[in-house]
Amino acid sequence: TAFRRWLRHTYQTPEQLNEAWGNVFWSMELRSFDEVSLPHLTVTEANPAARLDFRRFQSSQVAAYDQMQCDIIRAHSPGRFVTHNMMGFFTKYDHWPLGENLDFVSWDSYPLGFTEQFPFSHDEHVRWALTAHPDIAPFNHDLYRGVGEGRFWVMEQQPGPVNWAPWNPIPKPGMVRLWTWEAFAHGAEVVSYFRWRQAPFAQEQQHAGLLRPDSVAAPAYDEAAEVARELSAMPDVEATPAPVAMVFDYASAWAWATQPQGRDFDYFRLCFAFYRGLRRLGLSVDILPPDAADLSAYKLVLAPGVATLSDPFKTALLAHKGIAVLGPRTNAKTADFAIPVPLPPAMPSLDCTVMRVESLPPDVPVPLTKGGNFLHWREKAEGAPVRETTADGWPALIGDRLRYLAGWPDEAALARILTDACTDAGITTDTMPEGLRCRDAGPWRFWINYAAHPVTHAGHTVPGPGVLWEQR
Amino acid sequence: TAFRRWLRHTYQTPEQLNEAWGNVFWSMELRSFDEVSLPHLTVTEANPAARLDFRRFQSSQVAAYDQMQCDIIRAHSPGRFVTHNMMGFFTKYDHWPLGENLDFVSWDSYPLGFTEQFPFSHDEHVRWALTAHPDIAPFNHDLYRGVGEGRFWVMEQQPGPVNWAPWNPIPKPGMVRLWTWEAFAHGAEVVSYFRWRQAPFAQEQQHAGLLRPDSVAAPAYDEAAEVARELSAMPDVEATPAPVAMVFDYASAWAWATQPQGRDFDYFRLCFAFYRGLRRLGLSVDILPPDAADLSAYKLVLAPGVATLSDPFKTALLAHKGIAVLGPRTNAKTADFAIPVPLPPAMPSLDCTVMRVESLPPDVPVPLTKGGNFLHWREKAEGAPVRETTADGWPALIGDRLRYLAGWPDEAALARILTDACTDAGITTDTMPEGLRCRDAGPWRFWINYAAHPVTHAGHTVPGPGVLWEQR
Amino acid sequence: TAFRRWLRHTYQTPEQLNEAWGNVFWSMELRSFDEVSLPHLTVTEANPAARLDFRRFQSSQVAAYDQMQCDIIRAHSPGRFVTHNMMGFFTKYDHWPLGENLDFVSWDSYPLGFTEQFPFSHDEHVRWALTAHPDIAPFNHDLYRGVGEGRFWVMEQQPGPVNWAPWNPIPKPGMVRLWTWEAFAHGAEVVSYFRWRQAPFAQEQQHAGLLRPDSVAAPAYDEAAEVARELSAMPDVEATPAPVAMVFDYASAWAWATQPQGRDFDYFRLCFAFYRGLRRLGLSVDILPPDAADLSAYKLVLAPGVATLSDPFKTALLAHKGIAVLGPRTNAKTADFAIPVPLPPAMPSLDCTVMRVESLPPDVPVPLTKGGNFLHWREKAEGAPVRETTADGWPALIGDRLRYLAGWPDEAALARILTDACTDAGITTDTMPEGLRCRDAGPWRFWINYAAHPVTHAGHTVPGPGVLWEQR
Repeated sequence: TAFRRWLRHTYQTPEQLNEAWGNVFWSMELRSFDEVSLPHLTVTEANPAARLDFRRFQSSQVAAYDQMQCDIIRAHSPGRFVTHNMMGFFTKYDHWPLGENLDFVSWDSYPLGFTEQFPFSHDEHVRWALTAHPDIAPFNHDLYRGVGEGRFWVMEQQPGPVNWAPWNPIPKPGMVRLWTWEAFAHGAEVVSYFRWRQAPFAQEQQHAGLLRPDSVAAPAYDEAAEVARELSAMPDVEATPAPVAMVFDYASAWAWATQPQGRDFDYFRLCFAFYRGLRRLGLSVDILPPDAADLSAYKLVLAPGVATLSDPFKTALLAHKGIAVLGPRTNAKTADFAIPVPLPPAMPSLDCTVMRVESLPPDVPVPLTKGGNFLHWREKAEGAPVRETTADGWPALIGDRLRYLAGWPDEAALARILTDACTDAGITTDTMPEGLRCRDAGPWRFWINYAAHPVTHAGHTVPGPGVLWEQR
Repeated sequence: TAFRRWLRHTYQTPEQLNEAWGNVFWSMELRSFDEVSLPHLTVTEANPAARLDFRRFQSSQVAAYDQMQCDIIRAHSPGRFVTHNMMGFFTKYDHWPLGENLDFVSWDSYPLGFTEQFPFSHDEHVRWALTAHPDIAPFNHDLYRGVGEGRFWVMEQQPGPVNWAPWNPIPKPGMVRLWTWEAFAHGAEVVSYFRWRQAPFAQEQQHAGLLRPDSVAAPAYDEAAEVARELSAMPDVEATPAPVAMVFDYASAWAWATQPQGRDFDYFRLCFAFYRGLRRLGLSVDILPPDAADLSAYKLVLAPGVATLSDPFKTALLAHKGIAVLGPRTNAKTADFAIPVPLPPAMPSLDCTVMRVESLPPDVPVPLTKGGNFLHWREKAEGAPVRETTADGWPALIGDRLRYLAGWPDEAALARILTDACTDAGITTDTMPEGLRCRDAGPWRFWINYAAHPVTHAGHTVPGPGVLWEQR
Repeated sequence: TAFRRWLRHTYQTPEQLNEAWGNVFWSMELRSFDEVSLPHLTVTEANPAARLDFRRFQSSQVAAYDQMQCDIIRAHSPGRFVTHNMMGFFTKYDHWPLGENLDFVSWDSYPLGFTEQFPFSHDEHVRWALTAHPDIAPFNHDLYRGVGEGRFWVMEQQPGPVNWAPWNPIPKPGMVRLWTWEAFAHGAEVVSYFRWRQAPFAQEQQHAGLLRPDSVAAPAYDEAAEVARELSAMPDVEATPAPVAMVFDYASAWAWATQPQGRDFDYFRLCFAFYRGLRRLGLSVDILPPDAADLSAYKLVLAPGVATLSDPFKTALLAHKGIAVLGPRTNAKTADFAIPVPLPPAMPSLDCTVMRVESLPPDVPVPLTKGGNFLHWREKAEGAPVRETTADGWPALIGDRLRYLAGWPDEAALARILTDACTDAGITTDTMPEGLRCRDAGPWRFWINYAAHPVTHAGHTVPGPGVLWEQR
């Protein structure tokens, strides 16, 4: 009933709903909103536009409920802040509107469990089993700093093995301190640990705490205490924008989950690949909402896989003086989840048309002329200027200051494409050795080493695993 | 209710049903047809004879519905033809009776998607990802030419990437023309493409057409136009029988799905292996129904895995002057889905008894003395003359003009066994290089090359991928 | 309703139930037993203590039903024995109480199918596909001899391929005789074959018998007849205790299935690993119930993974003069399925505390200083004396006569740890070549060779596969 009400509000008439969803196809036309049923349990595939609308509706329910709770709390507890702890890699609802409701956002950081659940290769899973992947927590820090409009807390941080991942190893000694400092480096105002004392009973009895079940300090207690001592010697800092920004759009996660077209096409995985690519070049990254209207702080902006570019963002792109890289699959759908005609990406300042697309099965890479490959996905585009091509002669990267990338690059191809974009944007890059990452926070530069051994780079030797900071 | 009615009609009395199904086993005896329930959701395995009967019943429902529709159309549209488009690798109902109802059959050819879904090895999936496996479409062409009693159309042919396979790559340039000519070479009267224009909305918006969503010609448009020009220069031809025939029996697919006895025993996979084996020897193949009563046109007849040989076919085999190869698992069940006593294959003209059978787990091959292996399945048979043995001394191939093959041969073993059979049958074989296939149609010989590079063979250089034809 | 009644009987008051289950956690407290629902279909994980209690309840229902049947039979057929045939690797109910009800126990031995279903490596599956793993049937023989308080039958033994495993190969020639003699060597009073004649119809038509469907003798008939002739020449023997005992506790299988904490932590697999380790040292093994109160017959006792040690067993351990090895995960839970405080294993005679535990993902082994690795699971323990350490400096084996093993050892590590324990216990070990096993029964020593070739060891050449016996 609520879904029908939402559709009536959105589309006004059944005719306009039919038009938006393309219900003429397969005789799906509806005569009234009462004929709408939930878009599942159909004989064959349900209409993807209906499924996408159901996800939008669901998300709006979450936002409305959050708003209701905020209103109640503010009415009865004036002057207190209101926050809520969000999860990592969670896309069931659009988090950006909640960031507007809440005073600030917080999130629950479980680096080991998230690493296990992420679709890394087996080798990567083995390599990072005891430390987490070096970009897993940072991606979420940067995302939630964006959602929180610059402010966030880590409400729960893993102090040891947890109880819910497929396997639950003990983090390497030093990781609790490393993860904590990394959160601060990314702008966290508070890092809180879940939990204080390991409860010896019920569902979470195997979830470690700062204290053991017998109330003796666990190793994480000492690491947290060490951070507290170190922190007391540090001044407050103001956050500064990163040189690079990337858009993250929950609706695109829904769009590509609704119609992946290739079994392993996953929006979060795509964004994570670009984020990791930037971080391997030593860059700090801001994450922007899909309706970001001002890009003037950034020399380089990425928007991979954004299914439908918003009008504010398109306007901002036109005004942007830096380099922007769109694609693959950016602006590939209308707001009604149809293929736009004229064909995508349909950006006025970009001579580029995507004529057809293909998903690539495992082990069917498409080599690029300058090295590396497209994997998972590529597109047949035409336009000018062509900056890169595939070995079979298709344009791979098209454009000048605004660029379109016609495929999903592997690490080698992405490193080159991002390095070139940074060079053109006037950003200095610094390729990180395996396991090392760099993050700038106000006047400080943090070096964070996830490797098991010390790493010497740029004149510093960073313990492994460990963290080092310096004035920049 | 309809199933009970079908059973009452088939078995007349509960006693005869009990006898046929072996209901004395596990106290399954029924006192009336009203006690029959659907053969699923049982505490342990349901009676396989009941499950097989339910499949027969289902199939009879499809045939009756098709007959009803044909009757209505013919009554109201006299003089028009009636057809229906069938799918590839689809065994839920017996297609042969529908071939009798319809004026001719048609089918929907999606070579890339079918290749992805077929249980090939990972290497084969990679090798054929952009062209399809060279025998995938032809098997179905030959099957539906048989079902259509010599006539068939391709109602839908893939003109580019589709939207429903796990991955949906763009076919290599030239494949649309190649697949079209291949269909004609196998006797198609019409090749129609699905779809004319890519619909930009609803479920199939990622399914390519001859036109793009913006009505510009897609690459397939030009390939189809090229075939049309080429075709207009070709005379009509009459179909001629192939030298080799293979039986395809939907009821056997049901039988071995009901009781595979080895997890990877699949009837379609078995038949495809034999079909591919014949095609790698350069042979054209006809596919026959399980009740084929006249084999006089064929020098070699294969009937692998036919669970229960029909009386007309058994009679035809006795009268057959050529070579016939049965097995593995041929005539291994009575019509009531029991093991026959005397033991199979129980052919009067063949001194061969299968005493026991075994399914073989992965990587447990059984080497043959003359090379190659049995995989998946083998049988302990006795009889004479023994033409081949396994390395552990069991008869592997028994018989003279009528032969029984006591296992599932790998490619090497099958190539030798089929070559020997062809030699004895007076058929000339021509081992094809990787990717090349040959098909005779009336006075024409078609060379079809699925490889990425030109292939020179028998004095011809066939572009790759590409097609070449000559007068024979 | 019955579960609520069982809980009311067990806990008396809702307050005591709440306390035992830790229902204060996540607001799960109940006000009455009528508020208990089945511990499934919950929004998130159901309380593990509730799930474990449901398994206990289920098991008690089985035992009560078995008792009821025994009572009826004994009342109406006085003087007859009552038995029931149990399955291999089946842990849904606690078998030990049934062993007390029945006059003796029997079990159904299907070595090939059990081998296929066991989580061996792919190489092991291939190696043992046609013979079964050499410890698969023996583990169950020894378990059921224990459950039967020294007496058991094999009610069903596989005489050829069966119909229910993923693949159903024919056992190698000689295996039916080998398995039969092996059962006698382990104390079976009777070995009966399932089935007499292969039924040609219904569900089990592909299950081999001593006779073929046409009543001709199958190969197993001759092997059984050979055993019968050999057996008639052998005297009766009395069972003698083995030098080594291992506890097998069904409730621990439930505990670790309820809360594995690592996806591949399986109690049966753990016990099987220790059993195999003992057998590879040429030892005969007795299997004891978790409440074994007298260990005086054994020089070495193992109790890996027993979730909660019973009071009688703890008392017996204190009185034990030999060597005992506990761990990993032994005594890690209270009877209410909570982590005990003080921390485990909390044995008065053992200076050892397990402070935290971790599950290890695939390919993340923990090397031991003396060789081999921990896999799957390890624990951070402290105590003295430390007998072995991991390469990263954690105690791996702690204690003197009573020892705690802080991880799941691979084959190499386990062989050393068990050899050392045997040496200290005064037990002579004899490392078996691949495929060979040794079993002492009264005055006889049986050599059983699962390898495909003859094996010469300790002055004997044992045919392969085959069996040899001698007076000890």
